[in-house]
Amino acid sequence: MTAVHPAWLPDDLLAPLGSRRVRVLGAGLLVETVRAEIRRAVALHGGQLVDDPGSADVVLAATDDDSADGVEEYVVSRSGGVTTVSGAGAGLLHGLFHLVRLGEAAFGPDRPTERHAPAYPLRMLDHWDNVDVHPVMGQVERGYSGGSIFYADGRVRADLSRVAEYGRLLAAVGINRVAINNVNVHRREARLLTDDLAGVARIADVLRPWGIGVHLSVSFNSPVLLGGLATADPLDPGVQEWWARTTARVYEAVPDFGGYVVKADSEGRPGPFAYGRDHADGANLLARAVAPFGGTVHWRAFVYDHRQDWRDRSTDRARAAYDHFVPLDGRFDDNVVLQVKHGPMDFQVREPLSPVLAAMPRTHLAVELQVTQEYTGQQRHVCYLGPAWSELLGFRLRGPGGATVAEDVGGVVAVSNVGDDRFWTGHPLAQANLYALGRMAWDPASDPATVLDEWIAMTFPGAAPGIGATLHRIMDGSWRTYEDYTAPLGVGFMVRPGHHYGPDVDGYEYTPWGTYHFADRDGVGVDRSVATGTGFAGQYPPHWAAVYGSVTRCPDELLLFFHHVPYTHVLRSGSTVIQHVYDTHVEGVEEVERMVAAWAGTEGAVPDDVFVEVRERLAEQLRSAREWRDQLCAYFFRKSGIPDAKGRVAVR
Amino acid sequence: MTAVHPAWLPDDLLAPLGSRRVRVLGAGLLVETVRAEIRRAVALHGGQLVDDPGSADVVLAATDDDSADGVEEYVVSRSGGVTTVSGAGAGLLHGLFHLVRLGEAAFGPDRPTERHAPAYPLRMLDHWDNVDVHPVMGQVERGYSGGSIFYADGRVRADLSRVAEYGRLLAAVGINRVAINNVNVHRREARLLTDDLAGVARIADVLRPWGIGVHLSVSFNSPVLLGGLATADPLDPGVQEWWARTTARVYEAVPDFGGYVVKADSEGRPGPFAYGRDHADGANLLARAVAPFGGTVHWRAFVYDHRQDWRDRSTDRARAAYDHFVPLDGRFDDNVVLQVKHGPMDFQVREPLSPVLAAMPRTHLAVELQVTQEYTGQQRHVCYLGPAWSELLGFRLRGPGGATVAEDVGGVVAVSNVGDDRFWTGHPLAQANLYALGRMAWDPASDPATVLDEWIAMTFPGAAPGIGATLHRIMDGSWRTYEDYTAPLGVGFMVRPGHHYGPDVDGYEYTPWGTYHFADRDGVGVDRSVATGTGFAGQYPPHWAAVYGSVTRCPDELLLFFHHVPYTHVLRSGSTVIQHVYDTHVEGVEEVERMVAAWAGTEGAVPDDVFVEVRERLAEQLRSAREWRDQLCAYFFRKSGIPDAKGRVAVR
Repeated sequence: MTAVHPAWLPDDLLAPLGSRRVRVLGAGLLVETVRAEIRRAVALHGGQLVDDPGSADVVLAATDDDSADGVEEYVVSRSGGVTTVSGAGAGLLHGLFHLVRLGEAAFGPDRPTERHAPAYPLRMLDHWDNVDVHPVMGQVERGYSGGSIFYADGRVRADLSRVAEYGRLLAAVGINRVAINNVNVHRREARLLTDDLAGVARIADVLRPWGIGVHLSVSFNSPVLLGGLATADPLDPGVQEWWARTTARVYEAVPDFGGYVVKADSEGRPGPFAYGRDHADGANLLARAVAPFGGTVHWRAFVYDHRQDWRDRSTDRARAAYDHFVPLDGRFDDNVVLQVKHGPMDFQVREPLSPVLAAMPRTHLAVELQVTQEYTGQQRHVCYLGPAWSELLGFRLRGPGGATVAEDVGGVVAVSNVGDDRFWTGHPLAQANLYALGRMAWDPASDPATVLDEWIAMTFPGAAPGIGATLHRIMDGSWRTYEDYTAPLGVGFMVRPGHHYGPDVDGYEYTPWGTYHFADRDGVGVDRSVATGTGFAGQYPPHWAAVYGSVTRCPDELLLFFHHVPYTHVLRSGSTVIQHVYDTHVEGVEEVERMVAAWAGTEGAVPDDVFVEVRERLAEQLRSAREWRDQLCAYFFRKSGIPDAKGRVAVR
Repeated sequence: MTAVHPAWLPDDLLAPLGSRRVRVLGAGLLVETVRAEIRRAVALHGGQLVDDPGSADVVLAATDDDSADGVEEYVVSRSGGVTTVSGAGAGLLHGLFHLVRLGEAAFGPDRPTERHAPAYPLRMLDHWDNVDVHPVMGQVERGYSGGSIFYADGRVRADLSRVAEYGRLLAAVGINRVAINNVNVHRREARLLTDDLAGVARIADVLRPWGIGVHLSVSFNSPVLLGGLATADPLDPGVQEWWARTTARVYEAVPDFGGYVVKADSEGRPGPFAYGRDHADGANLLARAVAPFGGTVHWRAFVYDHRQDWRDRSTDRARAAYDHFVPLDGRFDDNVVLQVKHGPMDFQVREPLSPVLAAMPRTHLAVELQVTQEYTGQQRHVCYLGPAWSELLGFRLRGPGGATVAEDVGGVVAVSNVGDDRFWTGHPLAQANLYALGRMAWDPASDPATVLDEWIAMTFPGAAPGIGATLHRIMDGSWRTYEDYTAPLGVGFMVRPGHHYGPDVDGYEYTPWGTYHFADRDGVGVDRSVATGTGFAGQYPPHWAAVYGSVTRCPDELLLFFHHVPYTHVLRSGSTVIQHVYDTHVEGVEEVERMVAAWAGTEGAVPDDVFVEVRERLAEQLRSAREWRDQLCAYFFRKSGIPDAKGRVAVR
């Protein structure tokens, strides 16, 4: 059993389409992809690829559309017993997968014409893959699904068939861009930009038929590292010339190259600060190099002081992105996308939205999400993130009646959870996160529960009735369950430093990374109010500044993110902080116990390999959840001296 | 400036001897070493190696002594203007270095005959060197002095000249055995026993002229790993035969091979438990393989459960060695040495003695010390360990009037702090620990302050007056200073898990490694009493069982090791626990500040490279000591709510 798992495109799923007579009209690379998919489907299921207009059950018709906005949309209808999809190349491909999702429903009664178009042209995955294997981080930084599908033995893989399969899966959910290397660009990986262009071009060749463009993460220090220059100063003409020349060579190799992704002046990465320049200078340097070719620079806003003094309570990592970037609004070139993590910290299970997302109207923004579960169980825990993303994409950061985050940004970028693991994502159920990311980047208003059911139906076609409901029950609330048994009330972190797995309440409390809870014998939380704290709450538009700044109005789930309160503080829920810690941790573990029991009931109804793999990972999730519960409860009991009012917490 | 530092044998030191007329009598490998040393000394300093009996100022005369006990002793005297040393081969070599230490004092007025003999025939260094570089631990596990002097590029070094220099330094302090590889025997290192015998023999050839025997750490699983057997069961005849055959080949390559060092059933290493056998079965298996050749097995008593449940307060890692080994007393073959860490835990700056050292009268014991500063500043901090070793070797574990630990054991084994660093030990002043270890293994009754002065005089000959006193002031109390600013009152650990450097009060508190402090809002410490605790105190002979078991009689420095007490508990010193934490941490840092200032005064009076290196490391020591102070004080203030009565501690 070493075959790669088909994820949401098992062959059975192609039966409704593949058993019919299908006509494909048009020419071009992506239309040929559609034709090849049909050929595969009909070969499997007895249908036929036909040329005769009269005999087709399905018509997939390519239209000409040279507009950048229209190229990905498609129109679908059914009339007179014929289902018709039309779209330009990429749009037709998306339409094809729309039919796959619909299944037999695509061939029932007539349907009115529907037009489908993505919310954004930017729907991207960032791979934190290294060419080399990092001694601590492994080959994929924060990767929990084996090695890289792009690289092996210190170079781009000779056999990229797995990348082609990946492209097909991504196309089916609407992802259209991939950055193929880690934003922490180490010495070896820097050379992808120059020495390895042939390999990069081969990856681009494999992804292009799926409508997916390739981007590279680059080191800001490349002119020094690769070019032998004395400086990487963005205002230095020699540096500008080096980037122009180097970029021209990239486009010679990959004419539709997407552009650069840059992590600069962050966690030790080089950047413009070394030369007394700001991040607009830095981003525009690269933007001007790719502009002649239509490329984009993704500049990450994840910039903060990771060498701060924990003794200094006035320094607040949460403030950093806003403080660094908002003053630069309007200074970025038009082909710069500022890539902003959804929260002010770092992909915690619960954070407020980043106030940057509402504060830079004259800058192209993309919101950055994390599909790989660095802080949400590392694909050893079931944690379906759709509800979290839905909540944050629909959040009205400017206040009630204002735009949603989804309306304010120009794209969604997410860190991939894929590796060379046979299930793609380590945990088989973590495939649902990749699926949901794609679907919600296409339509941020998607209902995450519906997306989950869609994923279940596609991944387990033909499963016995009730199995889908069981999977839904296990997965739909799993994000809130994970929140329940980990760090409480929005305080975040409390993980083991370095690998970030498992509890360590004081793990970051006295470190230079700047993520603290200040728990003492009286209370816990970080005062980020304007009146008495770090002032971070004041970075929000007025409505949320007032809500977050008020200890009584602040939502419970973010209380400890914004306020330091006594353990006896009464929450909006009516419980106290300390009792909330006990309750959520006890109940979170009980919920995992229910997940384990529910999964046991799927034996025989899901493929054996999936059953066994998930069962083993659920066992680890339960062990880990109990560890979280017991450490958190013991820690806060030892500090507060207040016992669980319900008498369940025994570990002290 | 890349030459290797001469440590305690700078050429200048040889002037008194090297400027005289020296006669060497006798033949044999070690006598030739003596002759070569004299040849080198006189070449440097204008003396002469003479044959004429009448003209010699110094006579070094080899005697025949075939007894194992007498072979290392020497006799020294001065009469009629001639200094005479006699001894068998190794003894004569020790006598030569005795003259070097004496300097001009060896050539003053006549001196009566003195006989010098080591306290033990077993004075050994364990190197935790790997052949390969471990991705996390580096090449030398717990090594803070660069790579290995034995291995490079995945094999035994071609050039072993550095090892020869090392042998000379060790001979000068009386070390006579070296285990050349890590007790955590990884896959590659296991093959030293078989595939790499030629390399091991070359190392033995280089150390043999210095009277130093070579030992190997081996994997208990070798019969499976290297021999392809299905089992490593010590009672299996095939396993016994494999070890006999393999050992015979080792002795063919190295006829005076010392024997095996084994870490079994400890921290994941294989051992006899897997086969339902005990550690006597395991040790005797190997002992019988080396016995025909006169070899020894060093079997480590460092066996404990590193997967224990922190929730279970009855499990106590401190108990483990006693519980595992004392029942086996009398069952070990005569050529087994049970190697017992000095304390029940793991080389903490302060621990009680291991009760095993007084509990196995029918077993050969060696006490294991740690020269490498894993838990005592990792050679970034000055921490002269002579006073600690003196205290523990002179401790009367059976009670007042009983034998000292030094009298109870049959040898001293210590983990080396040497690497391929140009100062040998990373921190130049850490050389003093290696020096003191050798001198105190030779004579455990040595006064550590005298040994320190001896080291200073040898390492810095000709330094300006006052410099020796400054060095003495910096170093002599540095162990207690380190204790002051780290974990208080014997509680131990509180270090960052994994690398063990720097403070992390809760670092091990909720882990499976079993080393906790149970600090809550009321008090701190581990109850190891018989009456209410884990019972560990009851493993001691009656006097100490009573003392340690009593919260009022227990010495302050071990109080939290044996008892859980309120922060307001009044110590024997008159201070409270919480005030003691504040006082020692504030004062410990002040002492480091004085060390920094004192060292500044040595500029120009010690070699520049030493000056700069020590200055840089002292700066890190001061930074780290402040971090310890502030984290410890903040942690215990947050827990206790009791402020520093003297108002100095501001960090909360």
